[in-house]
Amino acid sequence: MEDFHELWRSLLPLGYSRSSGGYRRFAWSKADLACRAWFTAQAADRGLTVRTDRNGNQWAWWGEQLPGKALAIGSHLDSVPDGGAFDGPLGVISSFAAVDVLREQGWAPARPIAIANFADEEGARFGVACAGSRLLTGQLDPERARALTDADGVRLGDAMEAAGHDPDALGPDDALLDRIGQYVELHIEQGRGLVELERAVGVATSIWPHGRWRFDFGGEANHAGTTRLEDRRDPMLSYAFTVLAARKKAAAHGALATFGRIHVEPNGTNAIPSKVSAWLDGRAPSEAALASLLAELEQAARERAERDGASLSVVNESLTPIVEFDHALRDRLAKTLEDAPVLPTGAGHDAGILAARIPTAMLFVRNPSGVSHSPAEQAELADCEVGVHALAAAVRELAGGGL
Amino acid sequence: MEDFHELWRSLLPLGYSRSSGGYRRFAWSKADLACRAWFTAQAADRGLTVRTDRNGNQWAWWGEQLPGKALAIGSHLDSVPDGGAFDGPLGVISSFAAVDVLREQGWAPARPIAIANFADEEGARFGVACAGSRLLTGQLDPERARALTDADGVRLGDAMEAAGHDPDALGPDDALLDRIGQYVELHIEQGRGLVELERAVGVATSIWPHGRWRFDFGGEANHAGTTRLEDRRDPMLSYAFTVLAARKKAAAHGALATFGRIHVEPNGTNAIPSKVSAWLDGRAPSEAALASLLAELEQAARERAERDGASLSVVNESLTPIVEFDHALRDRLAKTLEDAPVLPTGAGHDAGILAARIPTAMLFVRNPSGVSHSPAEQAELADCEVGVHALAAAVRELAGGGL
Repeated sequence: MEDFHELWRSLLPLGYSRSSGGYRRFAWSKADLACRAWFTAQAADRGLTVRTDRNGNQWAWWGEQLPGKALAIGSHLDSVPDGGAFDGPLGVISSFAAVDVLREQGWAPARPIAIANFADEEGARFGVACAGSRLLTGQLDPERARALTDADGVRLGDAMEAAGHDPDALGPDDALLDRIGQYVELHIEQGRGLVELERAVGVATSIWPHGRWRFDFGGEANHAGTTRLEDRRDPMLSYAFTVLAARKKAAAHGALATFGRIHVEPNGTNAIPSKVSAWLDGRAPSEAALASLLAELEQAARERAERDGASLSVVNESLTPIVEFDHALRDRLAKTLEDAPVLPTGAGHDAGILAARIPTAMLFVRNPSGVSHSPAEQAELADCEVGVHALAAAVRELAGGGL
Repeated sequence: MEDFHELWRSLLPLGYSRSSGGYRRFAWSKADLACRAWFTAQAADRGLTVRTDRNGNQWAWWGEQLPGKALAIGSHLDSVPDGGAFDGPLGVISSFAAVDVLREQGWAPARPIAIANFADEEGARFGVACAGSRLLTGQLDPERARALTDADGVRLGDAMEAAGHDPDALGPDDALLDRIGQYVELHIEQGRGLVELERAVGVATSIWPHGRWRFDFGGEANHAGTTRLEDRRDPMLSYAFTVLAARKKAAAHGALATFGRIHVEPNGTNAIPSKVSAWLDGRAPSEAALASLLAELEQAARERAERDGASLSVVNESLTPIVEFDHALRDRLAKTLEDAPVLPTGAGHDAGILAARIPTAMLFVRNPSGVSHSPAEQAELADCEVGVHALAAAVRELAGGGL
C-alpha cells in the first residue's frame, strides 16, 4: 500500500492549522481549492477523467465510455472548523487507493466507475450541510444557495465565482444522476460502534432522523450589579435549565440532544442578557422518538421561561427524516465483506442525500476513540487499509468486471 | 424649571442610536466629544470656567477664586452600549440645573463649586470602568491606561490624542484633589429600592464589594450527532449547572450573581463544545458574604465538572472592596433632605473611587422599573426635579453661602 501512504502524505498539509492541530477546509476557500486541485492531480496520475458538475462536485471517471450505469464511490474533502484528518478525506483517498489495488490485481470494470468529491458537505462556511449533493438532487434551491453568506458576509455565489465556478449553473442535474446506478461512500465511523463489535469495517443501516432547532429566550437587559434577583427577567437561567433538561430527556429516549452553539446579547460581564439564542442538535432512532423529545423539551423550557419572566420561541431550522439505506445493497455488501456488521449512524452524509434518488450504501471504518469533528479524531492505519480492501471488494462485486 | 427641560433637549440627540433607542457615547468617540462640547457650552452659558484636568475630566468652576476647598458635584456623560438617557447625564444636568435654581434663589456660594464630568466612567470602550477618576486618584497606572485598546485595536492614548488631549499628561493629580473638600454625585438609582420606600430621592450608604471571575470549563469537541451521551465530555452541561447554582447561592447569601457573558468553542450547532468560558459578576453586602458565595459556587461547579468529565479553572479578574461613603456627610445630607432614606448600591461609581481620597456622597433618584444599562431605563420628570432641588439643597448646606 505504498500509494496509500503517498496519498495521505500529499493531502495532509492542505488546510492544516498549526495552532489547533486540526483542519480548516471550508467550502470554496483557498484550502478547499487546494484540496480540489489535489483531487484533479490524483485523478490525472491515474488516467481518470475529471469532470466538475453544475454544482461544483468533482467526478473522476474510470471507464466513462463503458456501457451501463456507473458505480460511484467517494466522499468529501471539506472540513468543519478544526476538524480531523479522516472525516471526508478517508473516503476519497480510499477510493483512489481501491482503484490502485484493483489495477494491481489486474481487474478492470465492466461498467463505469466514478470517484466523487462532493462540494461543501460540512456546511461549515455557509450553514447548509451537503450543499453539493442537495443541489444535485434538487433538495436545495439554487437561488437560496447562491444567497447563503459566510461569517464575513461573502455570498456562496460570489465565493464560487471567485473560484472559477459559474454560480448560475447551480441546480438539479437529472442527466448526471441518470448515469449513476449506485453510490457507496466509505467514511470513518463517528462513534464507537465498531470498537464494541471488535471489527475494522461495518456497513450502515440507516441515518437517524435529525434536526436543528433554534431556541430564543428573551429577557430584559439590566445591570448585573444592581438588579435584585426577584426583579430580573434573566433568559440565561431558562437556557441553563433547558441544557440540563435536554440531556435528561435525550437519555430517557435513547436519543442525542446537544446545545453547542449560543449567541448572547449584549454579552457583557455586568449585564443581565436581553436575549439568549441557542441551537439544539437533536437525533433519535425514530422520527417519533425525536418528535416526542422535542415536544417534551419545549414544554419544559417554556415552563421554566415563564418562571424566569422570559419569553421563548422555538424555530425548527432543519429536519431530516430517517434515511434507510437500500436494503438489498446493504445486505450484498455485508455478505461480500465477510459478514460485516451493520449499524446505524447519527451523522448526515451525502450518501443520505443521494439515497432519495439512487440506491446508496456506506462503509464505516473503526474509530478507536469515537471522537469526530475534532483534531483528536483518529483511525488506525491498519483499519484504513482494511477499509481500502473492503471498498475494492465492493467495487469488484458491484461493477462486475474481470480479466 | 424651563432651563432643566432645555438642558435635556440639548443633550438627548447626542449619541442616540435610532436602531436600539439607546445611547452609544463611548469614551473619546465622536458622540462623547459632542457631549464634552455640550458640557463646555452649558458652563459658558452660565459664566462658569471650564478646565480639563490631566486625565481628561472636565470641571466647570463657580467661584473658583473663593477661599476654602471646593464642593464638587457632577457625574459622567459617557454610556454603556445602548445605555439609557439617565445613567450619568442625570447627575451632570442636575448639577447645572441646581446652579440655576440657586441663582434664581439669589444664593451665592461661600466656597468654590465645581461641576465634574468624569471621563470614561463606564469603561465600555477600553474595558476599565471609572478610568478618569482612577487616573486622577492614582488607582490606574497611566502606562497601562495609555495601552488599553478598544475592539478595533485603537489605543486609549491614541484616541485621547486624536481628541486633542495629551496622553502623556495622564497620572495622579494631588494638586487638584487637594482643592476639593467633598464630592456629591447624583445618579439615577439602578434598582427599585426607592420605589419600595415610596421616595423620590435617597442617600447612598455604601457600594457593595464586587468582582468578576472567569470560569473556563474544558471538555472535548466531538460530533453532536454521533457521540453517545456516556462518551461525552460536554462542558456546556457543567456551565448550565453552574448558572443555576449561582442563582440559588446568591439568593441564599442575599447577594447577586450573574452570568451574562459567554464564549463557546467551536460554537457549532453540531459540535459538542471543547470549551465554555463564562464570566461571573458577583456582588454581596459584605466581603465575607462575597467570598463565601464564590467558594461555594466554585466547589459546586468543580463537582459537576468532574461528573461531566470536564475541567474547570476559575480566575478572579477583578475584585473591588466595599466602599463606605463618609458617614458624617451621608447623615448631614439625609437630614438636609427631609430625612431622606439611606440605601446601598451594587454599582460602581466615580464617587466610589474618589471616596478613597476625599469625603464623598451620592444621591439617588427613583427609577420606576429599576432597569439600568438599557434603553428602557426611565425616570419620572417630577422625580428628576425633586432631585435637582435636593442637590441644590445639598449645595446650600455644604457650600455655606448666603445673600
